[in-house]
Amino acid sequence: MTAEHGAVRIAVDAMGGDNAPADVVSGAVEAAREGGVQILLVGDPSQVQAELLKHDAAELPIAVVPSEGVIVEGEAPAMALRQKPRASVLVATGLVKQGKADASVSMGSTGAAMAAAAVVLGLSEGVDRPALGGPILGVAPNTIIIDLGTNVDCRPSQLLSFAVMGDVFARQFWGMEQPRVALLSVGEEAGKGNRQVRETTELLTKSGLNFIGNVEGDDLVASKAEVVVCDGFVGNVVMKLTEGLGQALSNHLSESLKGKLSDEELGIAAQEVHDLNNIVHEYGGGPIFGVNGISIVGHGAGDATAVRRAIGTAKFTHDIDFVPKLNEEMVEVYARVHGE
Amino acid sequence: MTAEHGAVRIAVDAMGGDNAPADVVSGAVEAAREGGVQILLVGDPSQVQAELLKHDAAELPIAVVPSEGVIVEGEAPAMALRQKPRASVLVATGLVKQGKADASVSMGSTGAAMAAAAVVLGLSEGVDRPALGGPILGVAPNTIIIDLGTNVDCRPSQLLSFAVMGDVFARQFWGMEQPRVALLSVGEEAGKGNRQVRETTELLTKSGLNFIGNVEGDDLVASKAEVVVCDGFVGNVVMKLTEGLGQALSNHLSESLKGKLSDEELGIAAQEVHDLNNIVHEYGGGPIFGVNGISIVGHGAGDATAVRRAIGTAKFTHDIDFVPKLNEEMVEVYARVHGE
Repeated sequence: MTAEHGAVRIAVDAMGGDNAPADVVSGAVEAAREGGVQILLVGDPSQVQAELLKHDAAELPIAVVPSEGVIVEGEAPAMALRQKPRASVLVATGLVKQGKADASVSMGSTGAAMAAAAVVLGLSEGVDRPALGGPILGVAPNTIIIDLGTNVDCRPSQLLSFAVMGDVFARQFWGMEQPRVALLSVGEEAGKGNRQVRETTELLTKSGLNFIGNVEGDDLVASKAEVVVCDGFVGNVVMKLTEGLGQALSNHLSESLKGKLSDEELGIAAQEVHDLNNIVHEYGGGPIFGVNGISIVGHGAGDATAVRRAIGTAKFTHDIDFVPKLNEEMVEVYARVHGE
Repeated sequence: MTAEHGAVRIAVDAMGGDNAPADVVSGAVEAAREGGVQILLVGDPSQVQAELLKHDAAELPIAVVPSEGVIVEGEAPAMALRQKPRASVLVATGLVKQGKADASVSMGSTGAAMAAAAVVLGLSEGVDRPALGGPILGVAPNTIIIDLGTNVDCRPSQLLSFAVMGDVFARQFWGMEQPRVALLSVGEEAGKGNRQVRETTELLTKSGLNFIGNVEGDDLVASKAEVVVCDGFVGNVVMKLTEGLGQALSNHLSESLKGKLSDEELGIAAQEVHDLNNIVHEYGGGPIFGVNGISIVGHGAGDATAVRRAIGTAKFTHDIDFVPKLNEEMVEVYARVHGE
C-alpha cells in the first residue's frame, strides 16, 4: 500500500448500506484508483479482506481498520450507539475525531451516522442538532432544500442555522457569491405562513444573508432561490413525494409510449422524467451539516459508483474547507442576529 | 323563465373569477340547459344581463339577483366583507342562508368565499375553522388530501375534524364504505412525526374512523389511503409543488420529444404527464368543508366548463345530503373521542 503525498484520508464504513460490504469495497477501490485519496476501510476484517481480494488492490492506498458490528436502518440510533461501541460507523467517525482521517463516509443508517457525528465530532457553535440538505429536484439542480427530515418541530433559531448551512453549501460547492435564501411557505407576502415562518423571518432579516423572503411549493421547481429553508417535516414530505412521483411518471411513460418510440428513446425519456424529479446523484451523498468534522452520508441503496462519488464528495468537502467556513459564518450570523 | 319541479337552486357569484362575468354566465347557461338546476346569477345587473343576451337564455331557469362590488383575490377577506356588505359572494352565500338557494358557487377569491361561508352560514358543530381538501394528484385520483392551505398551525382537534370531512367526502362522493384515513408524516411507524402528528394519532385512534396510521410523501402517489390528513401548511406545499412539477414536466416532454412523436401523440403525452401531477378538474370546484350550508369554490382561472362542472358539483353535494351527513358524523366522532 502506498499513498501519494497530500492524499486526503477517507474512513469508509465498509459495513453500512444495502450492498455492503461488496459494493462499498468496490467503490472504495475505484476511488483509490482515481487517486488523491487514501482509504481506511472500516469493517469486519475477514469480510473486507475477502472483498478486497476480488480486486487487484494490493498496490492501492487502502488499509483495513477493524470494527465489530453494524447499526442497521431502523435501529434507534442513540441506543444502538451505546450497545455497539465498536460498530463500523462509530469507528469510522472516531478516526476523523482522532485526526487519523480527514473525513468519513457511510452508506448505512443515516440516523446512526448523524448520531455518531453529533456525539463523536461534536456540534458546531450555535447548532442544536445536525441537519441534512441538498439539491433534490432535478428541475432545479441548484436549489438546496434544508432540512430534509432530521429535525421536526424546529425552533426559528434552528431554521436560521439551516439557512447558514445552505448558504455556505451554495457558496463553497457551487461557487455562488450571494446565494438567495428563502423560506418555504404558503404565500409569498411577508407575514404569510405559519408561526415558525413568521418568527424565522425576523431572524433572517437580521442575518446578513441574501434573504429574499418566502417561496411557495411551485417555486421549488423554478429556481427562485439557491437555498430553501424549511422544517424537516415539510422537507421530508417534499423529498419523498418527488421520489415517488419520479418513479410513477417514469413508469407511466415507459408504458404509454411503448411502440411509439424506439427502446433507446423510450429509456432516455423515462429516465429524464425520473431525473427531473429526483436529482442525479452526482455527489453520491452529502455532508452532515453542523458537526465539527466531515461525515458524508450516502443513500443506503447506493452502488459502487455512488460509493466512489461519495468518497469524491468527502475529498471535495475537505479540500474546500467546508467545516471551518461553516463554523465561521455561523458565528458571524449569530453575532448579527443577536446584535453583538 | 321556467324551472322544473324539484330543481336544485344554485346561487352563482357572477362577478368572481378571472373570467367573470363572461365565462361564469356562459357556464351557468350551459348548466341550466343540462337541467335539474335553477340558477340565481348574483352580480351587477347590467353586466350580467348583457352577458345573458349573448346566449339564447330567455327560456332557461335563470334569474338575476343584484349585488354591488366584488372581493378580489388578495384582499384581506375579513376586512373586505365589512367594507363590501353587498359584494356578490356575500349576496350569493346569503341566499343559501335565507333558504332561497340550496347552494352557492364562486370562482372568485377563495379566502372571501370561505370567510363569507363561515360568517353567513356558520360553522358545523365541533369545527373551529372551515377547511379545503380534495384529490389533487392525478396518479392517485381517489385520495383526498385535507387541508390544502386554509389552516396552518393546526391543533390536533382540527386535524381530527379534517379526517371526518375527508371520510364523509370519500363515503358520499365516491361511495366508499370504509375509507382508509391516514396522517401524512415523516415515517410510517406510530410515534414517527412531529408533535402535531403524535397528538392527533391519539385522537384518531379513538375516532372510530378506519385510521391506518401514518403515510409518507411517496405514499401520496400510491393510493395507500383515501383520506390523507395534514396541516394546511404541508398540504399547500404539496399542492403547489405538484402543480409546478406538472407544468415543468409537461413542458420538458413537449421539447424533448418534438420530432420523435406526431404532434397529436406529443400533445397527449404532455397532457397526460401534466394531469398525473394535477388532477383533471372534473368537479370544477369543491365544497368548503365545515360550514352549515353548501358553498362551492372553483379555481379562479376556471372557464365556462369549470363553472358548469362546479354548478354540477353544487347540485351533487346537495343531492347526497353532504352537509347534514358531515354534521352528523362530526357529532358521532367527537362523542367517541371525548368518551361520551
